[in-house]
Amino acid sequence: MTAVTNGVNVQALLDAREVLKGAPEAAQFTWRASSTWQDGVHSTTTIQNYFGLGEEQSHKTETVFDADHPAVFAAEDNGITPIEYLLVGLASCLTAGVASVAQNRGIQLRSVTSTVEGSHDIRGILGVDSDVRNGFSGIKVTFTIDADASSMRIVPNVARSFVILKKARSVRARSFQSSRRGSSP
Amino acid sequence: MTAVTNGVNVQALLDAREVLKGAPEAAQFTWRASSTWQDGVHSTTTIQNYFGLGEEQSHKTETVFDADHPAVFAAEDNGITPIEYLLVGLASCLTAGVASVAQNRGIQLRSVTSTVEGSHDIRGILGVDSDVRNGFSGIKVTFTIDADASSMRIVPNVARSFVILKKARSVRARSFQSSRRGSSP
Repeated sequence: MTAVTNGVNVQALLDAREVLKGAPEAAQFTWRASSTWQDGVHSTTTIQNYFGLGEEQSHKTETVFDADHPAVFAAEDNGITPIEYLLVGLASCLTAGVASVAQNRGIQLRSVTSTVEGSHDIRGILGVDSDVRNGFSGIKVTFTIDADASSMRIVPNVARSFVILKKARSVRARSFQSSRRGSSP
Repeated sequence: MTAVTNGVNVQALLDAREVLKGAPEAAQFTWRASSTWQDGVHSTTTIQNYFGLGEEQSHKTETVFDADHPAVFAAEDNGITPIEYLLVGLASCLTAGVASVAQNRGIQLRSVTSTVEGSHDIRGILGVDSDVRNGFSGIKVTFTIDADASSMRIVPNVARSFVILKKARSVRARSFQSSRRGSSP
Protein backbone atom coordinates (compact mmCIF):
# COMPACT_ATOMS: atom_id res chain seq x y z
CA MET A 1 0.00 0.00 0.00
CA THR A 2 1.48 3.33 -1.01
CA ALA A 3 1.37 6.20 1.46
CA VAL A 4 -1.70 8.31 0.86
CA THR A 5 -1.86 11.97 1.73
CA ASN A 6 -5.53 12.70 2.32
CA GLY A 7 -4.64 14.37 5.61
CA VAL A 8 -6.83 12.28 7.88
CA ASN A 9 -5.03 11.00 10.97
CA VAL A 10 -6.71 7.60 10.93
CA GLN A 11 -4.16 6.12 13.33
CA ALA A 12 -5.06 8.66 16.01
CA LEU A 13 -8.75 7.77 15.60
CA LEU A 14 -8.00 4.05 15.83
CA ASP A 15 -5.89 4.72 18.93
CA ALA A 16 -8.75 6.76 20.44
CA ARG A 17 -11.08 3.84 19.82
CA GLU A 18 -8.81 1.56 21.82
CA VAL A 19 -8.45 4.04 24.69
CA LEU A 20 -12.19 4.72 24.88
CA LYS A 21 -12.95 1.00 25.15
CA GLY A 22 -11.68 1.22 28.69
CA ALA A 23 -12.84 4.77 29.45
CA PRO A 24 -16.48 5.16 28.38
CA GLU A 25 -16.90 8.29 30.52
CA ALA A 26 -14.33 10.13 28.38
CA ALA A 27 -16.49 9.41 25.31
CA GLN A 28 -19.42 11.45 26.63
CA PHE A 29 -19.53 14.67 24.63
CA THR A 30 -21.94 17.59 24.81
CA TRP A 31 -22.15 19.93 21.81
CA ARG A 32 -23.78 23.33 22.26
CA ALA A 33 -25.28 26.12 20.18
CA SER A 34 -26.91 29.30 21.36
CA SER A 35 -29.19 31.33 19.11
CA THR A 36 -30.05 34.96 19.76
CA TRP A 37 -33.05 36.60 18.15
CA GLN A 38 -32.26 39.65 16.03
CA ASP A 39 -35.53 40.65 14.35
CA GLY A 40 -38.30 38.85 12.55
CA VAL A 41 -37.06 35.33 11.83
CA HIS A 42 -33.42 36.47 11.72
CA SER A 43 -31.14 35.07 14.44
CA THR A 44 -27.44 34.63 15.08
CA THR A 45 -26.19 31.35 16.48
CA THR A 46 -22.89 31.09 18.29
CA ILE A 47 -20.71 28.01 18.70
CA GLN A 48 -17.49 27.80 20.64
CA ASN A 49 -17.43 25.54 23.70
CA TYR A 50 -18.23 21.88 24.15
CA PHE A 51 -17.59 19.16 26.69
CA GLY A 52 -15.61 16.00 26.01
CA LEU A 53 -12.78 13.78 27.24
CA GLY A 54 -13.96 14.57 30.76
CA GLU A 55 -13.53 18.33 30.62
CA GLU A 56 -14.60 21.58 28.99
CA GLN A 57 -13.15 22.09 25.53
CA SER A 58 -13.14 25.02 23.15
CA HIS A 59 -12.86 25.53 19.43
CA LYS A 60 -9.96 27.76 18.38
CA THR A 61 -12.42 30.54 17.63
CA GLU A 62 -16.04 31.43 18.24
CA THR A 63 -18.14 31.12 15.08
CA VAL A 64 -21.40 33.01 14.51
CA PHE A 65 -23.98 31.92 11.95
CA ASP A 66 -26.83 34.04 10.58
CA ALA A 67 -30.11 32.32 9.86
CA ASP A 68 -33.11 33.94 8.24
CA HIS A 69 -35.64 33.28 5.50
CA PRO A 70 -35.60 34.63 1.95
CA ALA A 71 -37.92 37.19 0.41
CA VAL A 72 -40.29 34.50 -0.88
CA PHE A 73 -41.08 33.87 2.80
CA ALA A 74 -41.58 37.61 3.42
CA ALA A 75 -38.25 37.92 5.26
CA GLU A 76 -34.95 39.70 4.73
CA ASP A 77 -32.63 36.87 3.64
CA ASN A 78 -29.90 37.80 6.11
CA GLY A 79 -28.72 34.19 6.14
CA ILE A 80 -29.62 30.71 5.00
CA THR A 81 -32.69 28.99 6.45
CA PRO A 82 -32.51 26.67 9.47
CA ILE A 83 -33.40 23.66 7.34
CA GLU A 84 -30.45 24.41 5.04
CA TYR A 85 -28.10 24.19 8.05
CA LEU A 86 -29.11 20.53 8.32
CA LEU A 87 -27.88 20.07 4.76
CA VAL A 88 -24.58 21.82 5.60
CA GLY A 89 -24.12 19.32 8.42
CA LEU A 90 -25.05 16.37 6.27
CA ALA A 91 -22.89 17.38 3.28
CA SER A 92 -19.83 18.12 5.41
CA CYS A 93 -20.28 14.89 7.36
CA LEU A 94 -20.37 12.91 4.12
CA THR A 95 -17.28 14.60 2.72
CA ALA A 96 -15.33 13.97 5.93
CA GLY A 97 -16.58 10.41 5.81
CA VAL A 98 -15.32 9.89 2.27
CA ALA A 99 -11.89 11.28 3.26
CA SER A 100 -11.71 9.09 6.35
CA VAL A 101 -12.77 5.87 4.65
CA ALA A 102 -10.41 6.51 1.73
CA GLN A 103 -7.53 7.17 4.12
CA ASN A 104 -8.30 4.03 6.11
CA ARG A 105 -8.30 1.97 2.89
CA GLY A 106 -5.17 3.56 1.49
CA ILE A 107 -6.97 5.23 -1.41
CA GLN A 108 -5.50 8.53 -2.61
CA LEU A 109 -8.17 11.20 -3.18
CA ARG A 110 -7.77 14.09 -5.59
CA SER A 111 -11.17 15.74 -5.21
CA VAL A 112 -14.47 15.06 -3.49
CA THR A 113 -17.76 16.89 -3.77
CA SER A 114 -20.85 15.80 -1.85
CA THR A 115 -24.05 17.44 -3.02
CA VAL A 116 -27.26 17.02 -1.06
CA GLU A 117 -30.73 18.04 -2.15
CA GLY A 118 -33.61 18.00 0.30
CA SER A 119 -37.19 17.88 -0.98
CA HIS A 120 -39.56 19.83 1.23
CA ASP A 121 -43.29 20.32 0.79
CA ILE A 122 -43.78 23.59 2.67
CA ARG A 123 -47.50 22.92 3.08
CA GLY A 124 -46.41 20.92 6.14
CA ILE A 125 -44.76 23.75 8.04
CA LEU A 126 -47.43 26.25 6.96
CA GLY A 127 -50.20 23.99 8.23
CA VAL A 128 -52.00 23.82 4.87
CA ASP A 129 -52.59 20.08 5.10
CA SER A 130 -51.96 18.00 8.22
CA ASP A 131 -51.27 14.94 6.04
CA VAL A 132 -48.18 16.61 4.61
CA ARG A 133 -44.99 15.69 6.45
CA ASN A 134 -43.45 18.65 8.28
CA GLY A 135 -39.84 18.15 7.20
CA PHE A 136 -37.83 16.75 4.32
CA SER A 137 -39.76 14.28 2.18
CA GLY A 138 -36.53 12.93 0.73
CA ILE A 139 -32.83 13.65 0.48
CA LYS A 140 -30.69 12.84 -2.53
CA VAL A 141 -26.93 12.62 -2.24
CA THR A 142 -24.55 12.83 -5.18
CA PHE A 143 -20.86 12.15 -4.75
CA THR A 144 -18.30 13.25 -7.31
CA ILE A 145 -15.00 11.65 -6.41
CA ASP A 146 -11.71 11.69 -8.26
CA ALA A 147 -9.55 9.01 -6.69
CA ASP A 148 -7.22 6.13 -7.38
CA ALA A 149 -10.07 3.67 -6.96
CA SER A 150 -13.72 3.24 -7.73
CA SER A 151 -16.07 5.31 -5.60
CA MET A 152 -17.79 2.05 -4.80
CA ARG A 153 -14.88 1.17 -2.53
CA ILE A 154 -15.59 4.27 -0.43
CA VAL A 155 -19.23 5.33 -0.58
CA PRO A 156 -21.02 2.28 0.85
CA ASN A 157 -18.90 2.51 4.01
CA VAL A 158 -19.76 6.18 4.40
CA ALA A 159 -23.45 5.44 4.07
CA ARG A 160 -23.24 2.83 6.82
CA SER A 161 -20.97 4.70 9.17
CA PHE A 162 -21.83 8.30 9.65
CA VAL A 163 -24.01 9.90 12.26
CA ILE A 164 -26.13 12.29 10.31
CA LEU A 165 -26.76 9.95 7.41
CA LYS A 166 -28.30 7.45 9.79
CA LYS A 167 -30.72 10.06 11.04
CA ALA A 168 -31.80 11.01 7.51
CA ARG A 169 -33.32 7.67 6.71
CA SER A 170 -34.25 8.47 3.13
CA VAL A 171 -30.73 9.35 2.07
CA ARG A 172 -29.47 7.31 -0.81
CA ALA A 173 -26.51 7.62 -3.10
CA ARG A 174 -27.84 8.57 -6.48
CA SER A 175 -24.82 8.55 -8.64
CA PHE A 176 -21.16 7.88 -8.42
CA GLN A 177 -18.57 9.44 -10.62
CA SER A 178 -14.99 8.54 -10.36
CA SER A 179 -11.95 8.12 -12.45
CA ARG A 180 -9.11 5.71 -12.21
CA ARG A 181 -5.74 7.16 -12.85
CA GLY A 182 -2.22 6.38 -11.94
CA SER A 183 -0.86 8.04 -8.83
CA SER A 184 -0.74 11.78 -9.26
CA PRO A 185 2.23 13.78 -8.05
CA MET B 1 -54.44 43.83 20.90
CA THR B 2 -51.63 46.35 20.64
CA ALA B 3 -49.48 46.37 17.55
CA VAL B 4 -46.37 44.28 18.12
CA THR B 5 -43.11 44.90 16.33
CA ASN B 6 -41.33 41.56 16.32
CA GLY B 7 -40.74 41.96 12.59
CA VAL B 8 -42.36 38.74 11.44
CA ASN B 9 -44.75 39.22 8.53
CA VAL B 10 -47.31 36.74 9.80
CA GLN B 11 -50.00 38.04 7.46
CA ALA B 12 -47.87 37.19 4.42
CA LEU B 13 -47.39 33.66 5.76
CA LEU B 14 -51.12 33.25 6.40
CA ASP B 15 -51.82 34.56 2.87
CA ALA B 16 -49.27 32.08 1.47
CA ARG B 17 -51.05 29.28 3.29
CA GLU B 18 -54.31 30.20 1.58
CA VAL B 19 -52.70 30.44 -1.86
CA LEU B 20 -50.87 27.12 -1.51
CA LYS B 21 -54.08 25.30 -0.59
CA GLY B 22 -55.02 25.59 -4.24
CA ALA B 23 -51.50 25.29 -5.68
CA PRO B 24 -49.71 22.35 -4.06
CA GLU B 25 -47.13 22.23 -6.85
CA ALA B 26 -45.86 25.69 -5.84
CA ALA B 27 -45.19 24.34 -2.32
CA GLN B 28 -42.61 21.83 -3.55
CA PHE B 29 -39.20 23.17 -2.51
CA THR B 30 -35.74 21.69 -3.01
CA TRP B 31 -32.94 22.96 -0.78
CA ARG B 32 -29.33 22.28 -1.79
CA ALA B 33 -25.86 22.21 -0.29
CA SER B 34 -22.61 21.27 -1.95
CA SER B 35 -19.55 20.31 0.07
CA THR B 36 -16.03 20.36 -1.36
CA TRP B 37 -13.23 18.46 0.31
CA GLN B 38 -10.24 20.61 1.32
CA ASP B 39 -7.91 18.33 3.28
CA GLY B 40 -8.31 15.75 6.01
CA VAL B 41 -11.84 16.13 7.39
CA HIS B 42 -11.97 19.83 6.48
CA SER B 43 -14.54 20.81 3.85
CA THR B 44 -16.28 23.93 2.63
CA THR B 45 -20.01 23.80 1.95
CA THR B 46 -21.71 26.29 -0.33
CA ILE B 47 -25.35 27.33 -0.30
CA GLN B 48 -26.99 29.72 -2.71
CA ASN B 49 -29.71 28.33 -4.99
CA TYR B 50 -32.90 26.47 -4.27
CA PHE B 51 -36.12 25.62 -6.06
CA GLY B 52 -39.56 26.74 -4.95
CA LEU B 53 -42.78 28.42 -6.06
CA GLY B 54 -42.35 26.60 -9.36
CA GLU B 55 -38.99 28.06 -10.33
CA GLU B 56 -35.33 28.43 -9.46
CA GLN B 57 -34.67 30.85 -6.62
CA SER B 58 -31.49 32.30 -5.18
CA HIS B 59 -30.39 33.72 -1.86
CA LYS B 60 -29.08 37.29 -2.05
CA THR B 61 -25.57 35.98 -1.62
CA GLU B 62 -23.66 32.72 -1.71
CA THR B 63 -22.61 31.55 1.76
CA VAL B 64 -19.68 29.22 2.42
CA PHE B 65 -19.32 27.21 5.63
CA ASP B 66 -16.16 25.55 6.91
CA ALA B 67 -16.52 22.24 8.71
CA ASP B 68 -13.71 20.35 10.38
CA HIS B 69 -12.96 18.59 13.65
CA PRO B 70 -11.02 19.95 16.61
CA ALA B 71 -7.58 18.92 17.83
CA VAL B 72 -9.02 16.34 20.23
CA PHE B 73 -10.07 14.44 17.07
CA ALA B 74 -6.58 14.85 15.60
CA ALA B 75 -7.75 17.51 13.13
CA GLU B 76 -7.10 21.18 12.48
CA ASP B 77 -10.28 22.85 13.84
CA ASN B 78 -10.80 24.95 10.72
CA GLY B 79 -14.53 25.05 11.43
CA ILE B 80 -17.23 23.56 13.62
CA THR B 81 -18.08 19.87 13.33
CA PRO B 82 -20.87 18.56 11.07
CA ILE B 83 -22.93 17.50 14.07
CA GLU B 84 -22.77 21.05 15.46
CA TYR B 85 -24.34 22.34 12.22
CA LEU B 86 -27.44 20.34 13.15
CA LEU B 87 -27.58 22.31 16.39
CA VAL B 88 -27.22 25.60 14.48
CA GLY B 89 -30.23 24.58 12.40
CA LEU B 90 -32.23 23.49 15.41
CA ALA B 91 -31.42 26.55 17.54
CA SER B 92 -32.17 29.01 14.74
CA CYS B 93 -35.39 27.18 13.84
CA LEU B 94 -36.54 27.43 17.45
CA THR B 95 -35.74 31.13 17.73
CA ALA B 96 -37.59 31.88 14.47
CA GLY B 97 -40.45 29.79 15.82
CA VAL B 98 -40.65 31.77 19.04
CA ALA B 99 -40.70 35.04 17.07
CA SER B 100 -43.39 33.77 14.70
CA VAL B 101 -45.66 32.36 17.40
CA ALA B 102 -45.30 35.50 19.49
CA GLN B 103 -46.12 37.70 16.51
CA ASN B 104 -49.15 35.60 15.64
CA ARG B 105 -50.40 35.89 19.22
CA GLY B 106 -49.71 39.60 19.52
CA ILE B 107 -46.99 39.18 22.13
CA GLN B 108 -44.20 41.76 22.08
CA LEU B 109 -40.74 40.21 22.41
CA ARG B 110 -37.73 42.03 23.81
CA SER B 111 -35.18 39.24 23.68
CA VAL B 112 -35.03 35.54 22.91
CA THR B 113 -32.19 33.08 23.31
CA SER B 114 -32.54 29.40 22.40
CA THR B 115 -29.73 27.22 23.69
CA VAL B 116 -29.45 23.62 22.57
CA GLU B 117 -27.15 20.98 24.02
CA GLY B 118 -26.70 17.66 22.27
CA SER B 119 -25.36 14.67 24.20
CA HIS B 120 -23.21 12.43 22.07
CA ASP B 121 -21.44 9.24 23.08
CA ILE B 122 -18.63 9.16 20.53
CA ARG B 123 -18.09 5.43 21.05
CA GLY B 124 -20.90 5.08 18.49
CA ILE B 125 -19.19 6.85 15.60
CA LEU B 126 -15.79 5.37 16.49
CA GLY B 127 -17.22 1.87 16.44
CA VAL B 128 -16.10 1.06 20.00
CA ASP B 129 -19.41 -0.57 20.91
CA SER B 130 -22.15 -1.42 18.43
CA ASP B 131 -24.77 -1.03 21.16
CA VAL B 132 -23.98 2.68 21.46
CA ARG B 133 -26.25 4.86 19.34
CA ASN B 134 -24.39 6.60 16.51
CA GLY B 135 -25.84 10.08 16.97
CA PHE B 136 -27.26 12.33 19.68
CA SER B 137 -28.46 10.43 22.72
CA GLY B 138 -30.48 13.45 23.83
CA ILE B 139 -31.01 17.12 23.15
CA LYS B 140 -31.88 19.70 25.78
CA VAL B 141 -33.38 23.03 24.82
CA THR B 142 -33.40 26.07 27.08
CA PHE B 143 -35.33 29.19 26.12
CA THR B 144 -34.67 32.54 27.73
CA ILE B 145 -37.44 34.90 26.68
CA ASP B 146 -38.12 38.46 27.76
CA ALA B 147 -41.63 39.27 26.59
CA ASP B 148 -44.93 40.81 27.56
CA ALA B 149 -46.33 37.39 28.37
CA SER B 150 -45.35 34.12 29.94
CA SER B 151 -43.06 31.96 27.83
CA MET B 152 -45.63 29.26 28.30
CA ARG B 153 -47.90 31.06 25.84
CA ILE B 154 -45.20 30.69 23.18
CA VAL B 155 -42.98 27.68 23.73
CA PRO B 156 -45.49 24.79 23.56
CA ASN B 157 -46.59 25.97 20.11
CA VAL B 158 -43.01 26.07 18.93
CA ALA B 159 -42.43 22.55 20.16
CA ARG B 160 -45.43 21.30 18.21
CA SER B 161 -44.90 23.27 15.06
CA PHE B 162 -41.39 23.30 13.80
CA VAL B 163 -39.72 21.04 11.34
CA ILE B 164 -36.43 20.24 12.96
CA LEU B 165 -37.81 19.80 16.44
CA LYS B 166 -40.09 17.07 15.17
CA LYS B 167 -37.12 15.20 13.76
CA ALA B 168 -35.17 15.44 17.02
CA ARG B 169 -37.57 13.32 19.01
CA SER B 170 -35.82 13.68 22.33
CA VAL B 171 -35.99 17.46 22.38
CA ARG B 172 -37.74 18.87 25.40
CA ALA B 173 -37.98 22.31 26.89
CA ARG B 174 -35.99 22.24 30.08
CA SER B 175 -36.56 25.62 31.54
CA PHE B 176 -38.47 28.74 30.81
CA GLN B 177 -37.43 32.13 31.93
CA SER B 178 -39.53 35.15 31.22
CA SER B 179 -40.52 38.40 32.71
CA ARG B 180 -43.73 40.30 32.54
CA ARG B 181 -43.35 44.01 32.10
CA GLY B 182 -45.39 46.80 30.71
CA SER B 183 -44.88 47.65 27.07
CA SER B 184 -41.38 48.86 26.47
CA PRO B 185 -40.72 51.80 24.17
